[in-house]
Amino acid sequence: MNESSLLQQIYRSSASTDESVLIGPGDDMALLSFDWDNLLCGVDQLIIGRHVSKDTSPELIGRKAIARCFSDIAAMGGTPVGSLMTAALPPDTDDTWAMAVFESASMVAGQWGGPIIGGDIATSEKGAPPIFTVTAFGTVHTTAIKRHNAQVGDVIYVTGTIGNSIESHHLTFIPRITEAKTLIDTIEINTMIDISDGLGQDASHLATDRAQLVIDTSLIPLREGATLPNALSDGEDYELLFTSAMKPPADLTTAIGFVQQREVNQPPVITTDGEDISHCGWTHG
Amino acid sequence: MNESSLLQQIYRSSASTDESVLIGPGDDMALLSFDWDNLLCGVDQLIIGRHVSKDTSPELIGRKAIARCFSDIAAMGGTPVGSLMTAALPPDTDDTWAMAVFESASMVAGQWGGPIIGGDIATSEKGAPPIFTVTAFGTVHTTAIKRHNAQVGDVIYVTGTIGNSIESHHLTFIPRITEAKTLIDTIEINTMIDISDGLGQDASHLATDRAQLVIDTSLIPLREGATLPNALSDGEDYELLFTSAMKPPADLTTAIGFVQQREVNQPPVITTDGEDISHCGWTHG
Repeated sequence: MNESSLLQQIYRSSASTDESVLIGPGDDMALLSFDWDNLLCGVDQLIIGRHVSKDTSPELIGRKAIARCFSDIAAMGGTPVGSLMTAALPPDTDDTWAMAVFESASMVAGQWGGPIIGGDIATSEKGAPPIFTVTAFGTVHTTAIKRHNAQVGDVIYVTGTIGNSIESHHLTFIPRITEAKTLIDTIEINTMIDISDGLGQDASHLATDRAQLVIDTSLIPLREGATLPNALSDGEDYELLFTSAMKPPADLTTAIGFVQQREVNQPPVITTDGEDISHCGWTHG
Repeated sequence: MNESSLLQQIYRSSASTDESVLIGPGDDMALLSFDWDNLLCGVDQLIIGRHVSKDTSPELIGRKAIARCFSDIAAMGGTPVGSLMTAALPPDTDDTWAMAVFESASMVAGQWGGPIIGGDIATSEKGAPPIFTVTAFGTVHTTAIKRHNAQVGDVIYVTGTIGNSIESHHLTFIPRITEAKTLIDTIEINTMIDISDGLGQDASHLATDRAQLVIDTSLIPLREGATLPNALSDGEDYELLFTSAMKPPADLTTAIGFVQQREVNQPPVITTDGEDISHCGWTHG
């Protein structure tokens, strides 16, 4: 693998015609132009063999690397404006394979509004897993929607269906960028997250010291083939989970619970039966 | 290693009081506020065992991860405003070691004006090298200074001394941010790069189809212990290399050549003896 020639090929395929990219790949850094005051920025690593299986096609790897990072932008109530992508590849990596990953990433990134404007490729060690890291930038529609801001009296909503993402959804999902925009244009959202680690655990990030989430598990919209434990703990749904005192469009969302006063020593998330589900999900580490 | 608890520790140590950080670590993404129109962004990976030796102290690893990325900001004529840092760590990584890397990175990043405002930690495979990836953001003072814009008649300058960086300089250098600002405030710079791959090769990135760089190798300021071949090819100097038609402050820079008309089939960089030195440096791959 020759880093320079691979970078040149990638940049040729991802050259953006976006007017906001003043300096694209090929200089010391990229330069973005914009007419807003705030910038969302986040970063995610995709490790082959860990976040996707080793036999996943390069097209789906590139797609997922971008999609999961852009899902965070949606969860903040934002729209992507650009991204950077790096690869750390073992020395025996096939150039064609790496190119296919980048081309797919570049295609979806451009399509979703956040073209790849720079990056870095480095050679790691023989036997090390390939790692693709995406940094994404976004702008917020009105204001950024934070975690830990559920209000007593809010209703809890999710987009789409939940659970059993591993079947195929985690590789083919579309980040809920347009849905987030529609929701923000329609109602006031108090707190929001995208479901990546598991509904139970992610819901706990919306709670506050004074606000407890109560989920009616019979209302959770299950993805095909999913059981309730799948829905609570699988993660990788990349659906929006939020609370609001207003009623969102019914075709986009399902109400799955409500927010009540949180008493001292009470868990952040319970079922209507009082069961603590705030640890249901994937433990990082 | 528990990713969540490690992240919490790191974020506690890097919590920024910077007013421009509207949302810091701990949400889906960070939110930066600013009053400028353009954003510099770039990303660099530091692979242990490749970009630094395995016995390098965690403090120097964290420092270098930030410093080399911020050096790119200096080379664009900018100032850091924030950064994101990720780690891909094998499962048997010592938490104390990882924390020391992040704490050191966080300290220098804050000191140089670009506090760490977010990141990601993921577990890679047993035996895989630890990898730290830094994304840096910056603002430009006046205009971004690009590569490939040397003008016929310009003089070529470098800051500091060159060569033999491997002795210690590559681990302890200070990115030339303040020097770049002083230069930009004083003179008009036509094209600039930081020397990372080797003076010869990096100089070739300043040339154009019509402008050839001619370097008087006797004028290159050698770092202690460096030979001329070291200076031309070692790289990792992280000094600024630029061309200008104006005279920069003598205490910051050394003139090492001039820019002349480039004839067809002539290399981008030659010595005054006509020797092609445009490939002197480190080949990526």
